[in-house]
Amino acid sequence: MSAPVDDPSHPPAPVVRPPCIVLVGTQLAANIGMCARAMKNCGLTDLRLVAPRNGWPDSDAIAPAAGAADVIAQAQHFATLDEAIADCIRVYATSARRRDLQIPSLGAREAVAELSGHLQQAPADHTAILFGPEASGLGNDDLTRADRLINYDLNPDYSSLNLAQAVLLYGWEWWSHTREPAPDPAVETHDSAAPRAAFDHFFDRFTTSLDEASFFSNADQRPSTVQGLRAFFTRANPTERELRALQGVLTSLTRR
Amino acid sequence: MSAPVDDPSHPPAPVVRPPCIVLVGTQLAANIGMCARAMKNCGLTDLRLVAPRNGWPDSDAIAPAAGAADVIAQAQHFATLDEAIADCIRVYATSARRRDLQIPSLGAREAVAELSGHLQQAPADHTAILFGPEASGLGNDDLTRADRLINYDLNPDYSSLNLAQAVLLYGWEWWSHTREPAPDPAVETHDSAAPRAAFDHFFDRFTTSLDEASFFSNADQRPSTVQGLRAFFTRANPTERELRALQGVLTSLTRR
Repeated sequence: MSAPVDDPSHPPAPVVRPPCIVLVGTQLAANIGMCARAMKNCGLTDLRLVAPRNGWPDSDAIAPAAGAADVIAQAQHFATLDEAIADCIRVYATSARRRDLQIPSLGAREAVAELSGHLQQAPADHTAILFGPEASGLGNDDLTRADRLINYDLNPDYSSLNLAQAVLLYGWEWWSHTREPAPDPAVETHDSAAPRAAFDHFFDRFTTSLDEASFFSNADQRPSTVQGLRAFFTRANPTERELRALQGVLTSLTRR
Repeated sequence: MSAPVDDPSHPPAPVVRPPCIVLVGTQLAANIGMCARAMKNCGLTDLRLVAPRNGWPDSDAIAPAAGAADVIAQAQHFATLDEAIADCIRVYATSARRRDLQIPSLGAREAVAELSGHLQQAPADHTAILFGPEASGLGNDDLTRADRLINYDLNPDYSSLNLAQAVLLYGWEWWSHTREPAPDPAVETHDSAAPRAAFDHFFDRFTTSLDEASFFSNADQRPSTVQGLRAFFTRANPTERELRALQGVLTSLTRR
């Protein structure tokens, strides 16, 4: 049984403070703008900049930020990483796995789950996710500020991500973990699913039959009517056997 | 108990065919290149292009593809969406939620889980994920080809993603679902993890040094203070090299 909403012994889940995104030594202001956009996509707003190469503020960040200009306007600028994370209780640094540094490494999803668990206990804590310069990533001095390294574990043959993509993937994991779960889709098994070409063959014959039968009395509405029919049959997702049956129906109905 | 590897009654999990990525009416070839890069990051290689605005092949796609030039070189070009997905058994279209089309909509993670479930049953099936033009997204005619709509459910105040980011998020979910799980962060490999005896030797020497330095002014509290220190060093879990460094620190600090 769920607790009554206003039962004081069952307070609602606390609203947690999302982590700040700390960009260290970013080379191009356009990338800062694109990171701001990725952050806002995912409900993150606390952007902290450590010694961007061309200083701050930088008008080159504004156009790439598009609708996330508010994140840029509120961004804080620091001379050093230590100042940027001085108020932070937990710090995660994005990096490839490192065997030379004894810092635990985990995937982005696991990192979000761990951080979220911490914030359930201490929802007002400031926490930080660090991202290094575009070309080189974070240096050892920066990495040793981190409680954990976050490794994206992408295709080992090609794992290169640009800065805004790295921010987006972390943000996506944060957003996916903290938002309400999506409704459960109806999952069906289709033992003998039909290839799309077979469906198209049926549907083309179907609409041709309708045309021949003068089904579409209003030519202007034909496109939307066809779309609606196609959406229906696609959603119904006929199996091969069902398509054969539908073809038989068409044959029967159009026979004179 | 796990089944023996070569037990024919327990065949290994089938290698599934990853879905193809279908880009419909893409306006800029540079975006096709960046999509190829995002695909390769995530182990996706089957790129199909439907009527890109400037035709195909297009050399403008190559530089943005960076290390994913092979995906570009193998991309297939089609005049119509129906041709591009003619061999596909299941088709998902990325789109905002639509109330005017009766097509089930689900999140990217749920869509991957559903598709993966299908492919466990039919691993060789061709399947497709559709992405529309940059400015407008997929039109109704295209959407009605889909069994499902994929909605990213990002921040409702700012959900705009560019094309390559949309491909990346889908690819990330695919990759995260199908790759081997990341190693447990708790069981990180420490090539040079110290045996407990080495730790104890350090810690005994440490507490002896503290005793000799009259650190414990209150004898009653000594046990709990030592416990607290041991817990700290144990949690830090020093490697052999780190222990040697700590021993050196002790030697230095206690030298007269």
